Amino acid sequence: MQPVEGRGQLMIDTTLRSWKDNANRIVKFFGALSPEQLEQEVAPGRNRLIYLWGHIAAVNDGLFPLLGLGPRHYPEMEAMFVTNPDRAPITIYSAVELKEAWNHINEKLLVAFIGWSPADWLARHTAVSAEEFGREPHRNRYAAMLSRNMHMTYHFGQAILAKPRDPQAEG
Amino acid sequence: MQPVEGRGQLMIDTTLRSWKDNANRIVKFFGALSPEQLEQEVAPGRNRLIYLWGHIAAVNDGLFPLLGLGPRHYPEMEAMFVTNPDRAPITIYSAVELKEAWNHINEKLLVAFIGWSPADWLARHTAVSAEEFGREPHRNRYAAMLSRNMHMTYHFGQAILAKPRDPQAEG
Repeated sequence: MQPVEGRGQLMIDTTLRSWKDNANRIVKFFGALSPEQLEQEVAPGRNRLIYLWGHIAAVNDGLFPLLGLGPRHYPEMEAMFVTNPDRAPITIYSAVELKEAWNHINEKLLVAFIGWSPADWLARHTAVSAEEFGREPHRNRYAAMLSRNMHMTYHFGQAILAKPRDPQAEG
Repeated sequence: MQPVEGRGQLMIDTTLRSWKDNANRIVKFFGALSPEQLEQEVAPGRNRLIYLWGHIAAVNDGLFPLLGLGPRHYPEMEAMFVTNPDRAPITIYSAVELKEAWNHINEKLLVAFIGWSPADWLARHTAVSAEEFGREPHRNRYAAMLSRNMHMTYHFGQAILAKPRDPQAEG
C-alpha cells in the first residue's frame, strides 16, 4: 500500500499518463494526414478534421490562463476554432501551422504539469474566486485538466469516424 | 490548502464527479430516444446509437470483475456489444432492456465507488498480478475507472453526431 503522502502523487501520475497518451494519439492521428485529408468531415455536414484539431488545440491553449500559467500562446486560435463554427469566412491555420501550435502548447503544458505537487494541483484555477473556492474546493486545477482531457477524448472519438473503417480503433 | 490526508480524497471526488456527469448525460441522451431513433447511425455505415449505448454499458459492466466487485451483471452483453460488431446476426437488447441494464450497472458501480478510500482506489485491479503491480503501481482501480470514463466520453462524442446539428452540444 502507498504511504498517504504518495497517494495524491500517484493519482496525478495516473491522470497525466492518460493526458499524455491522449495528446500523443491525437497528434499521431491528425499529424499523419495530408492537408486534403484534413478537409474531410467527420460525418456529412459536420466539422472538418482540421477544425476539430484546431478546436482541441485552442481549448488546450486556454489552460494557460485558466491554470495561472500566463496568457494563451495562440490567442488567434480562439476565433478560428472556438467562437466561430467551422467554415466561417475567416482564415484559419494551415496543417503545418496547426501542428507546430499543437506541439508547442502541449510541450509547455507538460512542463508545468510535471512540476506541480498534489497541493499545486488542488489549488484553485483562475475562473473561481477565493470565496467560491472555499465552498467548492473541487474547482481546482486538477479538475480543469481532467475536464480538458475528457474534451480531447470526446472530439477524438469524432475524428476517428473520418478514417476508413477499422473496428480496433473504435474500441 | 488541503491537509495531506484529504488530497487523495479530493482528487477522487473530482474524478467521481466527472464520472457521474458523464454517466448522467449519456442516459439522458440515449434514454430520451425512441427505438426508431436508436436505429440511427452516427455516420453513414458506422455504428447505430443502440449499439454504442450497449457498448458503453457492456464495457462499464466489465468494471465489476476488473475492480474485484464480482462477476458481470449482464454477461450476455459482451457478445451483443463488444466481441461482435454492430448488425451481427444475433439478438440484442431492446431499448427498454438496455436502459434497465444501464441504470442497474451504474447504480451498483456508484455504490462501490462512493465507499472506497484513496487506499482502496490505489489497490491493484484484477488484470494485473501482484508482481507486476509492484513494478507498475499505476495499474490500479483508479486508473481503470479513469480509463472507462474516457471510454464513455469517446463514444458519447460520436453518439452526439446523430443529433440534429446543435453547436452548443458539441463543445
